[in-house]
Amino acid sequence: MKKSPLQKARATYSPKLPVVLTGAVEAVLGKPTESVANQDEIRELFPNTYGLPELHFEKKSSAARQANIADAPINVGVILSGGQAPGGHNVISGLFDGIKKIHRDSRLYGFLMGPGGFVDHKYKELTADYINEFRNTGGFDIIGSGRTKLETKEQFDKGLEILRQLNITALVIIGGDDSNTNAAILAEYYKAINAGVQVIGCPKTIDGDLKNDVIETSFGFDTATKVYSEVIGNIQRDCNSAKKYWHFVKLMGRSASHIALECALQCQPNICIISEEVEAKNMTLQEVVNGIADVVAARAAKGDNYGTVLIPEGLIEFIPAVKSLIAELNDMLAARADEFAAVPAAEQRQWVISQLTPANAATYESLPAGVARQLTLDRDPHGNVQVSLIETEKLLSEMVAKRLKDMAAEGKFNGKFAAQHHFFGYEGRCADPSNFDADYCYGLGYTAANLIHAGVTGYMASLRKLTLPSVQWIPGGIPVTMMMNMERRHGAMKPVIQKALVKLDGAPFLKFASKREEWAMNTCYTYPGPIQYFGPAEVCDQPSMTLKLESQGL
Amino acid sequence: MKKSPLQKARATYSPKLPVVLTGAVEAVLGKPTESVANQDEIRELFPNTYGLPELHFEKKSSAARQANIADAPINVGVILSGGQAPGGHNVISGLFDGIKKIHRDSRLYGFLMGPGGFVDHKYKELTADYINEFRNTGGFDIIGSGRTKLETKEQFDKGLEILRQLNITALVIIGGDDSNTNAAILAEYYKAINAGVQVIGCPKTIDGDLKNDVIETSFGFDTATKVYSEVIGNIQRDCNSAKKYWHFVKLMGRSASHIALECALQCQPNICIISEEVEAKNMTLQEVVNGIADVVAARAAKGDNYGTVLIPEGLIEFIPAVKSLIAELNDMLAARADEFAAVPAAEQRQWVISQLTPANAATYESLPAGVARQLTLDRDPHGNVQVSLIETEKLLSEMVAKRLKDMAAEGKFNGKFAAQHHFFGYEGRCADPSNFDADYCYGLGYTAANLIHAGVTGYMASLRKLTLPSVQWIPGGIPVTMMMNMERRHGAMKPVIQKALVKLDGAPFLKFASKREEWAMNTCYTYPGPIQYFGPAEVCDQPSMTLKLESQGL
Repeated sequence: MKKSPLQKARATYSPKLPVVLTGAVEAVLGKPTESVANQDEIRELFPNTYGLPELHFEKKSSAARQANIADAPINVGVILSGGQAPGGHNVISGLFDGIKKIHRDSRLYGFLMGPGGFVDHKYKELTADYINEFRNTGGFDIIGSGRTKLETKEQFDKGLEILRQLNITALVIIGGDDSNTNAAILAEYYKAINAGVQVIGCPKTIDGDLKNDVIETSFGFDTATKVYSEVIGNIQRDCNSAKKYWHFVKLMGRSASHIALECALQCQPNICIISEEVEAKNMTLQEVVNGIADVVAARAAKGDNYGTVLIPEGLIEFIPAVKSLIAELNDMLAARADEFAAVPAAEQRQWVISQLTPANAATYESLPAGVARQLTLDRDPHGNVQVSLIETEKLLSEMVAKRLKDMAAEGKFNGKFAAQHHFFGYEGRCADPSNFDADYCYGLGYTAANLIHAGVTGYMASLRKLTLPSVQWIPGGIPVTMMMNMERRHGAMKPVIQKALVKLDGAPFLKFASKREEWAMNTCYTYPGPIQYFGPAEVCDQPSMTLKLESQGL
Repeated sequence: MKKSPLQKARATYSPKLPVVLTGAVEAVLGKPTESVANQDEIRELFPNTYGLPELHFEKKSSAARQANIADAPINVGVILSGGQAPGGHNVISGLFDGIKKIHRDSRLYGFLMGPGGFVDHKYKELTADYINEFRNTGGFDIIGSGRTKLETKEQFDKGLEILRQLNITALVIIGGDDSNTNAAILAEYYKAINAGVQVIGCPKTIDGDLKNDVIETSFGFDTATKVYSEVIGNIQRDCNSAKKYWHFVKLMGRSASHIALECALQCQPNICIISEEVEAKNMTLQEVVNGIADVVAARAAKGDNYGTVLIPEGLIEFIPAVKSLIAELNDMLAARADEFAAVPAAEQRQWVISQLTPANAATYESLPAGVARQLTLDRDPHGNVQVSLIETEKLLSEMVAKRLKDMAAEGKFNGKFAAQHHFFGYEGRCADPSNFDADYCYGLGYTAANLIHAGVTGYMASLRKLTLPSVQWIPGGIPVTMMMNMERRHGAMKPVIQKALVKLDGAPFLKFASKREEWAMNTCYTYPGPIQYFGPAEVCDQPSMTLKLESQGL
């Protein structure tokens, strides 16, 4: 690999480890825990791993240190699961250094291309030389990642074979809410059959929706939002220089709007849509569009025919009217596929409208022709409408343009409207981790090693007090069952980690809501610039605004 | 303006001024110059400013310094013309500091929103406090930019009124090749009528196509390509982690492929198309597509169903067959607009094909339906096909998918092909300038002040030896007429600065060409990471690969 100058310089960075972890530690147990909801069902499903205590690590007293000099080596397996997030390589480096500190003959095995490598026995021993190539770098290419779901007894048993073969007694699964849910199920299963294998999870996802009272943030969110904020800031500076375009920027994030909200707090755009608010207010697509058009018109009245709009990727599925339309389209087109196929192309739109219930017909009619056509024609192999194909940023700007035409006819808009479109996602998932994520991930991996050493299973590695300097962070472990509730998945109730959506009464949203009118009318753009790794601490070591505001509370 | 931590920290950066400019200077004149071509025509069009000598500055001897203590204040106007490029604010800061050093009562006026502000007498005096808000920042928002072309005597005379009113005796125009051409025409005009106003140009454009033997690079190219390389690198790391997508990345750059080439040299993608090569080899669109498909198939044969393709924005217009198709479509649809309008939608495609000459019909048939429809339906107000609407990155990936289907049927492709699309442009035009661009721009502005002080007109500010540390750069001035030739524009021959396309026998292209087969088959991605402002020199102070390779020559 030919390395860039930055790669070379960054390789020498030493993540700042919490002071507690710099010597021998002991686990301090808290009280038994309960799941966030559905306690009876979760307890029943996890008889061996429910109700475990939270734990945190403290420096070992010297007396205790004496007693423990004869640690044995441990063999550990690690899996990267799901979408990439900056810092995954540092979780693995921290885990490696942590188990090597416990015993220099400890070994780390990486399963290749995600959980599939575990089931199919594809792995690689991760040696010091190999790991050194990946310290402080973005990407998951150290062992690759994949989206295979670990769900079945067959998979668990198949995986156990390779664990036994390699004498692995602990498995670390780095993933999002679904992967950590499956890690907990695996932990419970191995405990139930007395397999002698611990399972530890690590909270990963750029979406920022794996967090709760005990997990302050998932890793990768910080870096990814900083990359998006960099390019949004650059676009805003362009917007404010040329003064002729409205930039519609869609941001990755499957359901929650944390990414869009964080970027809004960083960049102060004219408009940012928050899906959770659209749903809570039961807004129609047209109401979202009208809201944008009103800001465009109000700015135009001041002579400002430019601006920026941030749009969360998941928006469409949060609009109740669109959800209802899609549900009816799926049912209707499935039931009457042959009849639909026989309608001449030019008449399809009218035919669909005539078949829908009035409310859904109105929503369908409001869609631009291209999008409406896509919904009925480009369906997936199961015949379902493919929401993910909809280019929400273009859909909204087209509908805004149409709305502005109507407003102009009524004398309510007197300006110009030209749009540019952007979608940012892949740009941020594999960036070199910020100092925050580099430290956080290294610390999580190191903590996972200590959780293994403490002999626990079904825990997620945790670092708390994340707005303090990283040396002061508190390492520990959280029983995964504690974060669970029952939710309907594929028609059945399942135990899952509760996903964290944007809270409309949370500090980050309230801060945004208190500012957005000013940001809409005035041009208050802030330009965060690119992530800096070497500069002053106030530039390089800032956690996300979301984390800062949440830690301050209200 | 709420400033980000980076904005605040970066504001304190002192651009490294060439040592020569740190004291009093004297202009050393070279020999008279000739234009690069069409010498007789250019000489005739520029009787007062043709043939001027190149000049460079040297430190003034102490004797000469004595003689010049009674410099008078000068009032200078400045215009930002055309698209944004990182560093414009530093040109203006350097110019301001330069004229203030000549005399502390010198004044700088900025014309607002581009050349239009000059003609319409919209301006702002740029004071020290105001300028300090913009040092080392991206964007052109200090005074705004615009695309009005300064071409007519009426504009020149109208502008002269405001110059007289403000007692401005020198005008600095910061722009690309067209704007600098017009600056030269303005310089000639003011000289001819004895207006007493000097005109100085500055080479700006992220496209990198304003360069030649005497202007080593235009400002903004360095920063913009570094931003694009950052996000391309991040995407490549994602690509190499997930191993399931081909990423098609289109890069801004109206005609030349310098940006794509520089990003390829930085990131080592699997494929990079260079428009100038496609044109030189007289390739068809299908041949370009086949070339990509062959690489996809060859990588698939190794089990690598992923990769990256860089595409210059201007590609489509460099493909001779597409150029020919578009020309015929424009003529045909203009001549037979009513007839075409009467063709039923479902029959339009066939009708168009039946009307075209066979070669163009074949090109048209090879296009995906959506693009073909766009070419005939979404025409501009003059009825012309809008090439800029074509999403080349999607066009190519669709055609590659189709080609791979055919190859699979012939047993020549056995793999998966899924594509993601990106277009980067606005993300880089207003980034905070890299140290290179911050220094280069500040030095250009400072040099412009010295050119004004030297009493010359029709010159472009220049800094040479740009691969040396910035303190060693050689400041000077280049007569704009020297870069000119005659070209056909809107049906008439005009004197214009010769645009620099990618030279297929130049060092940057040859370097790329020598590596591309290896990059295609193996995965040699390099990850440049974000621009760093505070780190080690080997990270922060690197000029572009293009500049380094060109300075080494062959």
